Order: sequence, then structure tokens, then C-alpha cells
Amino acid sequence: MTEAPEFAFIARHFRSLAGPGALGLADDAAILAPPPGRELVLSADTIVSGVHFLPDDPAETVGVKLLGVNLSDLAAMGATPLGYLLAVSVPGTLPDDWFAGFARGLAGMQARYGLTLLGGDTTATPGPLTLSLTILGHAAPGAALRRNGARPGDGIWVTGTIGDATLGLACLTEGLADPTGHLVERYRRPSPRLGMALHGIAHAAIDVSDGLVQDLGHLCRQSGVSARIAAALVPASDAARAAGAAFLDRRLTGGDDYELLLAVPPDRVPALLDTAGAARIAVTRIGVFSDGADGVTVTGADGAPMRFARAGWSHF
Amino acid sequence: MTEAPEFAFIARHFRSLAGPGALGLADDAAILAPPPGRELVLSADTIVSGVHFLPDDPAETVGVKLLGVNLSDLAAMGATPLGYLLAVSVPGTLPDDWFAGFARGLAGMQARYGLTLLGGDTTATPGPLTLSLTILGHAAPGAALRRNGARPGDGIWVTGTIGDATLGLACLTEGLADPTGHLVERYRRPSPRLGMALHGIAHAAIDVSDGLVQDLGHLCRQSGVSARIAAALVPASDAARAAGAAFLDRRLTGGDDYELLLAVPPDRVPALLDTAGAARIAVTRIGVFSDGADGVTVTGADGAPMRFARAGWSHF
Repeated sequence: MTEAPEFAFIARHFRSLAGPGALGLADDAAILAPPPGRELVLSADTIVSGVHFLPDDPAETVGVKLLGVNLSDLAAMGATPLGYLLAVSVPGTLPDDWFAGFARGLAGMQARYGLTLLGGDTTATPGPLTLSLTILGHAAPGAALRRNGARPGDGIWVTGTIGDATLGLACLTEGLADPTGHLVERYRRPSPRLGMALHGIAHAAIDVSDGLVQDLGHLCRQSGVSARIAAALVPASDAARAAGAAFLDRRLTGGDDYELLLAVPPDRVPALLDTAGAARIAVTRIGVFSDGADGVTVTGADGAPMRFARAGWSHF
Repeated sequence: MTEAPEFAFIARHFRSLAGPGALGLADDAAILAPPPGRELVLSADTIVSGVHFLPDDPAETVGVKLLGVNLSDLAAMGATPLGYLLAVSVPGTLPDDWFAGFARGLAGMQARYGLTLLGGDTTATPGPLTLSLTILGHAAPGAALRRNGARPGDGIWVTGTIGDATLGLACLTEGLADPTGHLVERYRRPSPRLGMALHGIAHAAIDVSDGLVQDLGHLCRQSGVSARIAAALVPASDAARAAGAAFLDRRLTGGDDYELLLAVPPDRVPALLDTAGAARIAVTRIGVFSDGADGVTVTGADGAPMRFARAGWSHF
């Protein structure tokens, strides 16, 4: 009697990614001793070919992106990565060696961020490649960052630069120039902003996945505050700046940046700069939270509020 | 600024399923304090419309099936359910009220088996409805049942009856008669065999998801033993028996039963019968494990080994 084909597939591509609790990916479930005295932080994100990534994106970068977007959720909670489960729904038309590249992308992220594969599921689908990942992290009790803690007077801070990823997508689908390749790299390889010790520094956090304006709106709604930011203060890479002012709207509302948006009270700014500097992550103050339910106001170069056709992306 | 459409969708259908750690399904991740002194048991299973369930299966039973197949993995490990994350990829053609029925199915299983929704993801797909669930349970350290512990001389036991679900599928797709509706119910509503205290009783366990012969083969390979069972001893429901001898092969190799297959040494049989009786779960001895790498032998009514066109199902 031979093994069912998914067992050989799993052994070929995924067994080398598995950690000790994964039981060789050969049992009904994984077994994990949670770190004593810590809370677990759990999130799930699915990416679908043609919806969240391009069908001709390199397999390795799809692995990077899948773990990147999930690690970004842990970063937004201030959690430390522990492990993940991976459910893949595979169309019959996808060549087997696609998964060799995909697993290489996962392996690189595992090594960089210190987590291992715990388990998962492999199934066929008549639809597009669908990759669903559940990530586990841990944090000290009560230390996980939430979306609902921003207070009037807190500064609005972002990590890194905003808008590169959506411009990278425009390079791939609309012919925008990308002479250095920086924008496409940012679209394909998110860098989750793990490594800062934000507990006791940030009152609230969210990762910028669906667009800066929309995700800032989530923070406002969950916290019961309003936000005012200045477009001129939103950090842009040289490559994004080169795209010109015509792309400003897009930068502020496009998705896939996976930077962090933080609410930081003025007296914690020195501590923020210390931990960001230690993690070599750039942070920039772009505005301030205030009372009220006015949502997000973005002031343009003339000081007047900008208007957007849409605040961000929805993949639903 | 209005919320993105997936937030209203999540609030409408899933928020009432959420437990305390889910943070109202409104944050980047869930926070869970693991039960002190316990190990976590983690598994993921995806079901795809047209592959694992029929597109016209009632939405409520799809919810029952999705949680049922995942709870069955916990049952096979001897673990107690804790919570789950749910990733749904939704085709645009599916009416919104489908999810009301689906959530009812989940809610019923939550109440029955004592777990809550922790988090997840909602996304669009151009493909079929794809439902991916990651389940968390817990067990005493070292107590989780594995597939690799069966020893020569252990009896081979199964819970419940075998073959109903695959005959139920035949009723729905091939016109097999199902006068009582029992077979279709068994296909659509698996009953995960939680509730027995199998630690110290069973040397190994697996759930019968892909077919009795194939899943018994997994136990043999993982444990390094062979198995011999008698077809006549494999328990069948009255409804399955009524389908006649022509369906014997199908019963032994069809999937979706979600019964447990256990390796139990002779001296632990009284304890097995006690815990199964307390949980009101029928258990039946169908054969014995032995030395060697001969895999699974099924003896027919004439005492000769049966031959099967295939040992079980693969959805890959």
C-alpha cells in the first residue's frame, strides 16, 4: 500500500520547515508547550492568487509575503513569533516545483524571525491557489498592544515609508517606472516591523495593510478619537517620491505596506526613539489624535483637508 | 468615512460566535491565556465547496462539518477543545444569508463541544467557497495520543459505525436509497468522538477521515507494525447494512466517518469499555496489530484477504 499523494507532497516541500512540536507533520495535530507565564497572540490571514498577489509573482516572494503579512499582525500586537499552521488549496494546474520556491521563501522568513511550521493541511481546489496561515505569538500578560488605546494628544507615528507597495503594484500592472526595483520589492516582500519593545510606549497600534487613511480610521473608531495628519509629513522613499505628486493620493490610501501606525503620548517619545533606534526601524511623527468622532483628516500642502475617492483597499 | 465591507460582514455573522480573547474580532489578533500546566494541541483543516462538501449542502451543515472535522483531530489526540480561528474565502456569487445558516451550524457545535471563535480572516475569491479552520485544544503534558504508539498485540478498535458517510455521499450523488435519512446525516454532520479519557488506555489513535483501510495504514506506518482486521467485525449501521454486500468495499475505504481508530492493549480493554460507556460512545474490536511491515490485511467472509481498488480517499 502506498501513501496518499499529499503525504509525499508535504514531505517533499514542508517537512524541513517543521519545528519540534510539529511531530514531523505526520500526526493529527501538533503539540506545543506554551511559554510559561505568557499570553498567546493568534491571527490568521489568507492570500488568494489574483486577489492578494499576482499569479506570476515569484513563488519565493509569495512565501515571503504570506509569512510577512501574518508576522505584521504580531508586530502590531507587540508579540514575539512562535510558530504557524499553513493550509494550502492547490489548483491542479500548478507545477509541483512552484512549492519548492514557496518553501524557500517561508524558510528565509522563519530563519529571520525565529518561528517554525507547526502543522496544516493540503487540499486540491478547482479555484485559484489559496494560502491560509494561522500564526501564533506570545506576549507578557496585559502587554499586547490593542487598537483601542489611542488618546487625544497622542502623536501619530508610522514606521518606515508609506506607499511603496501600492506603487510597486502599479509598476507591475500599470507600467509605472521602477528603475531601482525598490517599489516592486516592497510590494512582494513586506518587512514586518518586529523587534521594538512598544509596551508602555505606544497606547495603540495597527499595521498598515489596507491603506494608511483607512487603517488610521480603524484606530480612531476603536479608540473613540479623531486623527489629523499632514500629507507632507508622511514618509516616502526616494523611489515613491520619484513617481511624483500625481501619486500622492495613491500612496496615502494604497495597501500592502505592512508598516506600523502607533499612538504615542508626548512623554514616551524618547523611549520610542530609543527602541526604534535599537531595532534600526525609522519612525516618523505624522500628526496627532484629538477628541471627537470626526474620523481622519489629512491636510494637503495648502493646509486644506484632502478628499479621497476611497480611504483604502478591501479584498472582500 | 464608512467601515470597509468585511467589517460589517464579520459583525453580522461572526461576532456572536466570538469568545473573550477574540477582542470583538476587531483587532489585529486574538489574545489567549493558555490553561496553566497544559500543552496546546493545534490542527488545521480546510474544506472546499465541490471537493469536501457539495455546493447544495445546507449552509448550517457545512458549519457543522467544518468544526466537526477539526474537532475530530482533537479527539484523535485526546485533547480538550479551546477555540478556533476561521479564514473564509468567499465567491461573489454566494448570497450573504448563506453565512447566517453557516454561523448557526458553528454556534451549535460551539455550544455542544465548549469552544469559541478567536479570530480569522475574510477575503474574496474568484474560486469556490473555501473554509479554513485552525483549532486549538489542550492536554496534560505528555498525554496527547499519537499515531506512532501502536504495538504488536494491541487490539484494533473503532468507535461508532464505519461507512455511513461515504454511503451518504452515494445517496446524494448516485441515487442510493436512504429511507431514514441516516446516511446523508452522517455525511453532513460528523460527530467528533470527544469525551473519552484515552490517555493510559490507547497506545495510538487516528481519526477515520480518508477511509478505514487507508487511515489504519497510516497508524501502521507511523508505528512500524502491521494490522489484520476482519471485514465482518467492522461495525455497520442498519442503514449501511441495508445498502447490501455490494457496498462493503466502499464502506471500508470511503472517507468522512470521523470515527476514531484506536490501538488498545488487552489489559486496558476494561478501562476502554468504562470510559467509552461513560461517554456513551460504542467501541468495537475489529482486529489486531502484529509485527512486520505488511501493512493492512482485511479478511473477507471466506477468510481470504480482500483486495481494494483503492485504500481510501485523497482530496489532493
